[in-house]
Order: sequence, then C-alpha cells, then structure tokens
Amino acid sequence: MSTYDDFIVAVKDIHRLQALQGHLGWDRETIMPEKGAAARADMLSWLAKEAHARLIAPSLGVMLDALETTEGLDEDQQANVSEMRRAYDKAVKLPEQFVADYAHCKSEAMMVWQKAREASDFSVFEPHLERLISMTKEKIAYLDVEGTPYDALLDEFEVGMKVEDYDPLFAGLRQRLVPLLDSIMAAKVNTPDPQWPEGLNFPIDAQTDFCTKVSEAMGFDFQAGRMDASTHPFSAGLWPGDTRFTTRYDLSEPFSCLYGVMHETGHALYEQGLGTEHAYTPRGAAVSLGVHESQSRFWENQIGRTPAFWEVALPWFKEHFPDAPSWDPATLNRIANKVSTGFVRVEADEVTYNLHVMLRYEIEKQLFNGDLAVKDLPHAWNTMFQEWFGVEVPNDRLGCLQDIHWSMGAFGYFPTYTLGNLYAAQLLESMAEDLGDIDALVSSGDWSPLLQWLRPKIHAQGSKMSPSKLIEHATGSEPSPEPFLRYVESKYGRLYDL
Amino acid sequence: MSTYDDFIVAVKDIHRLQALQGHLGWDRETIMPEKGAAARADMLSWLAKEAHARLIAPSLGVMLDALETTEGLDEDQQANVSEMRRAYDKAVKLPEQFVADYAHCKSEAMMVWQKAREASDFSVFEPHLERLISMTKEKIAYLDVEGTPYDALLDEFEVGMKVEDYDPLFAGLRQRLVPLLDSIMAAKVNTPDPQWPEGLNFPIDAQTDFCTKVSEAMGFDFQAGRMDASTHPFSAGLWPGDTRFTTRYDLSEPFSCLYGVMHETGHALYEQGLGTEHAYTPRGAAVSLGVHESQSRFWENQIGRTPAFWEVALPWFKEHFPDAPSWDPATLNRIANKVSTGFVRVEADEVTYNLHVMLRYEIEKQLFNGDLAVKDLPHAWNTMFQEWFGVEVPNDRLGCLQDIHWSMGAFGYFPTYTLGNLYAAQLLESMAEDLGDIDALVSSGDWSPLLQWLRPKIHAQGSKMSPSKLIEHATGSEPSPEPFLRYVESKYGRLYDL
Repeated sequence: MSTYDDFIVAVKDIHRLQALQGHLGWDRETIMPEKGAAARADMLSWLAKEAHARLIAPSLGVMLDALETTEGLDEDQQANVSEMRRAYDKAVKLPEQFVADYAHCKSEAMMVWQKAREASDFSVFEPHLERLISMTKEKIAYLDVEGTPYDALLDEFEVGMKVEDYDPLFAGLRQRLVPLLDSIMAAKVNTPDPQWPEGLNFPIDAQTDFCTKVSEAMGFDFQAGRMDASTHPFSAGLWPGDTRFTTRYDLSEPFSCLYGVMHETGHALYEQGLGTEHAYTPRGAAVSLGVHESQSRFWENQIGRTPAFWEVALPWFKEHFPDAPSWDPATLNRIANKVSTGFVRVEADEVTYNLHVMLRYEIEKQLFNGDLAVKDLPHAWNTMFQEWFGVEVPNDRLGCLQDIHWSMGAFGYFPTYTLGNLYAAQLLESMAEDLGDIDALVSSGDWSPLLQWLRPKIHAQGSKMSPSKLIEHATGSEPSPEPFLRYVESKYGRLYDL
Repeated sequence: MSTYDDFIVAVKDIHRLQALQGHLGWDRETIMPEKGAAARADMLSWLAKEAHARLIAPSLGVMLDALETTEGLDEDQQANVSEMRRAYDKAVKLPEQFVADYAHCKSEAMMVWQKAREASDFSVFEPHLERLISMTKEKIAYLDVEGTPYDALLDEFEVGMKVEDYDPLFAGLRQRLVPLLDSIMAAKVNTPDPQWPEGLNFPIDAQTDFCTKVSEAMGFDFQAGRMDASTHPFSAGLWPGDTRFTTRYDLSEPFSCLYGVMHETGHALYEQGLGTEHAYTPRGAAVSLGVHESQSRFWENQIGRTPAFWEVALPWFKEHFPDAPSWDPATLNRIANKVSTGFVRVEADEVTYNLHVMLRYEIEKQLFNGDLAVKDLPHAWNTMFQEWFGVEVPNDRLGCLQDIHWSMGAFGYFPTYTLGNLYAAQLLESMAEDLGDIDALVSSGDWSPLLQWLRPKIHAQGSKMSPSKLIEHATGSEPSPEPFLRYVESKYGRLYDL
C-alpha cells in the first residue's frame, strides 16, 4: 500500500468513530429511553477519546508530512491531506489535560446555562461563562494562529473568514437592514399581518403527512433517510445512504413544523448529495456550516416562503387540514413572512435574522478582541438591541441567555448563519440565470431542476475547495452580500407595499 | 493501576465495541432506511474487526496469564478472568484468514439459504451447507478441545454441556413426550380446540397498547427501554439503562404479538436486572442462551399461557379489542395452548417444541460426530419427523430449510432452547416452594413477587457462575428434566382431559 492508502485507512477510522458518535447522538435526541442517559454520555465520551487518540497519533503526523511533499496527488487527495492537517495541528497543539478540563467546563456550563435561562438570571451563568471564556482564550493561545484572537475562533467554523472580512460585510448589511426594518414596522401600523385564528387544532399525524409530502417534493429520498421528532430539530448525515432529520410539532399552528422540515430537508439534501465514494473522509463531508446553512435557508425561505410555493402546497394543505381557514396562497405567504421585532433569533424573519446574528458577533468580538467584561454583557446586549430593533429587552431569558451556543463554548459560530443567508441568495440569483424564472419553476410543482442544479455545483463537491471558492465555483462570483440585499429589499418591499 | 484494573479497561473496550454492534444491529432491524444497508454491513464488520483485534492482543494474553496466578481476586473478578480466558483462547486459536473466510462463507450461505427456502429446494443450499460444515469441522480442529467434535460446538452456546449430558436428557424427554403427544392428538379428535373466527381485525395500535400493558405488568421498565416492531422479534440489552425488544403484528389474531411480547419481555427483564455496576464485562452479562431462554419461556408459557393470567388480562383484552368474541379466560387459555403436530418449530406448543429441538440435535450430532452426509439430510429429517410426530413433511421449506441457524453456522445452538424450557419449569417449582400458590399470585394481578424472586437468584448473578451452577444456586437442585415433565404432563393432562 502507498502512504496515501495507509493515510486513508487511518482517516476513515477516525471518521467512523465520529459517525458512531453522530448515530448515538441522533438516537439520544429522538428515541433513547431516559434512563439510558448516563451510559450514553459515558459512551459518547469514550468514542470521542478514541477518535482523539487516533487523530493525535504520531504516525498520522508522519504520513501528513510525507504526503505534503508527495507529487501527483489529485485534487480530492489534496483536499483530504489539507483538511486532516488542519484537524491534526489543532488537536496536537492542545494538551490532553486541557482538552479534558475544557470539556468538563463546557458540560458544567451547559447545565448551569439551562438553569440560568429558566430563572432568567444571567448572574447564575456569569462565573461559568467567565471561566469558559478564559479557557477559550487559553485555547486560542495554544492554537497560536495568525490574526486576532477572535479570528482563531471564526476560522474554526468557517475556514478563511476573519474579522477583517466580517466587519465590512456586517456594517454594509446593517446599513440597509435597519432602515428596511423601520419602514416595515411603520407600514405594519396600517396593514397588520394576518394571524392564525385561536383555537385551531392541527393534529400531529396530519402535520407529519403534509410535511413528508413537501420534503418528498423537495427531493428527499425517504428510502435513504428518515424524519422523526425531537425537542430541537436537526439534521444528520449519519451514514452513507442513511440521512436523518427531525422536526417538532405545535398543535396550534403548522408552520413551525413545515418550515422546520423545509429547513432540515435542505440540510439533509446536501448530505444525501455528498455521494458515497468519499465516505468517512473530509473530501466526502460538507465543507462548512455557512454552506450547510445556505442549503437549509434556500429551501426554507427562498423557495418555501413564496406565493409560488403556496400555489403548489395549498391543495396539500387543504387536504391535510380541512378545518383551517380557506386562505389563498398570498395570505398563507403573508403569514409565513411576517416581520417582527421579536427578541428571539430562532423565531426571526429574514429581515431581522441577520441583525440578531450581528449583535452576537459584535459581543463576541468585544469579549475576545476588546475589553468587554462578562459582567457587562447583558447591558451591552440590551443597548445594541434597543438601538437596532427599537425595542427594550425585558429580561435575560429573551436576551443574552436565549442561545445554547456560548454554554457549549461555540464562540464564533453565529456568523455562519448569516453567511448561509448570503450564500443562499447568491445561489438563487445564479440559478435564475441558468434556469430562468424560478417562481415559474416552483409554481409548476416540479422542483427537481432546483436540486439538480445544486447537486453538482454544491453537494457533490464536498470539501474539495474552501467555502468561498465553492460559492465562486457555483455562481461565477466571489461571495457578496449584494444578492441578499437585493432579494430581501425586493421581497419585503412587495410584501409590505414599501 | 493494578494489572486487574488494566485488564478491565481492555475488557470494557472490547465490550463497548460489541455493544456498538448491538446498537447498530437493533437499528438495522427496526428503523434503518433500506438504502443504509450496505454502509451498515460495512460498519458492523469494521466494529467486529476492531473488537477482534483487541481480543487477540498479546497484551491481553499477558494480563490473563498474570491474573490467573494472582491471589486475592474476588468471585466477580475471577468470573471476568475465566470468561475472558475462554474468549481469548478461542480467538487466538483461529487464524485471521480463517476467520475472514468463515465469515464470508456464512454471509454467502445465509443469502443462498433465503433463496433456497423461498424455492423450498434443499439442493440449492446443499453445496453451501456442505462447505459451512467442512469449515466448521476445520474450526473444531483449530479449537482442539476435549470431547467429541460436536461437544466443541455445544460448549460454545452452553458452557459445560456435552453430548454425554444431552443424550440421556433428550432420550428421557422423548420417552414421555411422544406418548403424551399421541394421547393429546387422540383426545383432539373428539374435542377440537377453539379457533379465532375468520374476518376479525385487531388494529396495530390496540395490539401495541394491550401488549405494552402486559409488559408493564410483568415489570418491564419503559423508562429504561423500548418496544418496537421488526420482522423477527428479538430482545437486546443494548446499554446500561437501555434495553429494547421488538414484536410483530398479525392483524387477524393478537396472540402472535402478545406471546411474542411476553417472550421478549422475559429476555428483556433479565437484561434490565443484570445491574450496571459490572457493565461491559462478562460478569455483568447474561450467562448463557439456555438461562436467557428460561426467562423468556417462563413468562411466555408458565405465566402467560394459564387461566390465572387470563383472569387478569381478560378485562384488558376486552377493553382493547371490543369486537372480539366474548370468550371466558378458560377458552382464551385453550386457544393459547393448542397442541398440534405442525411442522414449524417457532410455532410449536410446549409439548412438541422440544421434539423439534431434539430432531435438530440428532441431525447435528450425526453431521459432526457420525457419518450423515449433507445430501442425505432432508431424508434423515423427514424420517425422524414421521416417527416422532406421525406426520409426513411435505417439503423442505416446512422441513430442514425452516430455520436460519445453520446458514449462520450456528451448529449446537438449538439444544439451548430445550434447556431454557427445563430450567424455566425447575425455577417455577422452586418459586412455588418459596412463594406458595403461583396461580393465586398470578390471578391477583400483582406479579412483582415473581420478578423479585428472579432478580437476585438469576438476573443479578450475571455470569458469576456456570449455567448449571446458577440453576442449582437458584433452586437448590442440579438441573433436571423432571420438573418440566411434571409440569407439561399435568398442564396438558388437565387441558385435554387425559
């Protein structure tokens, strides 16, 4: 066997152990009986330890060194070498004791965060967040990469993206989103959004059937995947040929389930499109959180929240929910696109969503690159929220305690959500150049050209190139916020008669 | 750390890898999407390879050698050492190439068996069975243990049991079961068994709820386990705190589901009772197939197929199946205990079941210790069946092709089913000595004393002692067929007025 063959065996072993963690994680969130929790946590940490031990094996370092000076590797092989180099370097730079302490700190912080959030009391979480940030700074020092401290974190979630990239991007977005939001809020005073009437009941079986139909129409292959229920919806490409996503149900309205399913199906289609020939290697995996989010947001918002979608889905809706009001596609679409200055990111519309993200970005930046003290975090949050949304945050639960991410040590994660929105809009514009009128295509009911466009340009590429190169490869242009701004201003201008 | 501590870390790693196989196997049989099959097979064989590599690690051999001469190990520790010694010796004696070839031969044979069974044509399966038996003989030679060749196989499934144990046991059973069967068949001519009327419909949801109620009444903890559906019902103690069993549904009658659930719940209660302090070690695992089967048969037959059970279960039955005939407990019990000379082991009643097992035992013995040629197997099967059951086997599908076991290379497995029946009857007698009238206890509706009796005597013992020592420990007597014969003759004598 060549060195590359040996290398791939080692790489696949690591990824198999990670895939096992993924499967047990899926099982835990969906069907595990509650008394299985302790053994599951123990097993997941055993698998993580096993995978880590193989990742930091000196033999892997030796192979990487050799392969980096080997001539004649093809693009796929090069992608595997460079992705594994990145993972290896990061892993070996962190002392094992630090990794264990950090994991412990995170799991403790997560439990405390849940309590603090319930009690809506930041002071409960504060010492844990303090310690988590101090350990994260320690980690940044170990990693010893170029750029600002926060850059090291941003790079973990979207390779190549730094503060110097995000700062102008976000400033530009804010400059146009804040005035747009103001105009919409003013317009809403005269023409209020339609609402779900109270007292309706949307049975779980009917929601499941309706959403399954939509997911199938998007192209999800249910012979190679499943839909289940969980508290927090998610999607996971567990195994080659076996991608699973989840949803949740609100009996009083069906959109939480529907758009959750469209979102997760978007993620799941990406996983189903990765192809199996590169299974258990970086080349065969999704390239980044930003690109993943572009797939979910594309289907959820740019396809799902349109009158064209509702022209197709209305008969299905009526069939499954015969007791719902007999609304037309335009009204259902208005409900699906209601803009509000709500406090919660995960419930936000397309206009305000990125403002929620930027707020978190600014705070993270000040925590790691500036001098924001943890104790001043709620004040910083609430001040910025008031400035951008024009509303006062009533409590920590609806403010800086709402997201789980910080309690997991996932600093630098949030900006990838916005990248997803931007990428999605850029993909839509480029798709329209190739396929013509997308609305017409969507209202025809045959959405397969959309998926067939995404498959070779995004899905099948795996991690062959960097996220921004991938977007450029797919659309012919470097990533830019302009398509998103054009999209959002045009869409909401029409919706609210601005 | 002491050698024993190091040893336990290695032992647990092996068992964790096996538990992962168990989990992925459960998932495959219950919920895996069909296109996940190829990757699942690949992953299961990777896990088997990883576990095997750790089992044959020379370092394990060194630790075993050291521990076998270490003073002061307690009983639990000694059990782990001796069980791992057994597994280690067997694993290291088999050359790796042989293990791979044998696995390949088995998986090919299983696929061909399915086709042969469908076509009811033994000749299709014959060359594969021929090769499987020849490789199994090769394996016996590698194992190089004392006794006859067939003894080596019997020992794999129930430690310590040999031809010299089974031969007199089975001869004694046959001597009394064949005449009992004859009397019953004669009695049936005048008083036919009651039947399920045709055209009834037992909805899946109602069957699920009814069987869940029975399983809960038996003591299964649904917070530490699940019930799902699968083609072939099974039970698996996947993880500490997470034991899962399955059932299947026949819409035309509910007993296939009910007694399947009682059987699998019996297995599952054993798993739930093993305790978690010895998790991932042999000491914490069920001791043998025979003892496992005693737990399933105890609940299914000795508790479930009684008038006392139906006194309790009839109101539940009526509640869930309001359209069923309004039978009394005695009639339902008659249906549940119908004796017949059917051809299929898995559908057999308590009188004929062990005859089905013995037939397979005699054939296996002649294949490995005698000179029965594979091509003569159907003839040998059919001749023996005619002699014992008085009926002619119409085809191979209902004859020697009915069971999956041989296609999996599981020669020597069948006798453990009979051991289970014998152990169960012996446990019931002993339980009655301690708890008094078991019928009265069952008809009271509170079955917890039964489980509380089994827990310390059987379940919590794990693999602390050999199967026969465990039965002796629990009942005060060595394993014997007499309790079973007393039980079956008395029960069926009453049922058929003999």
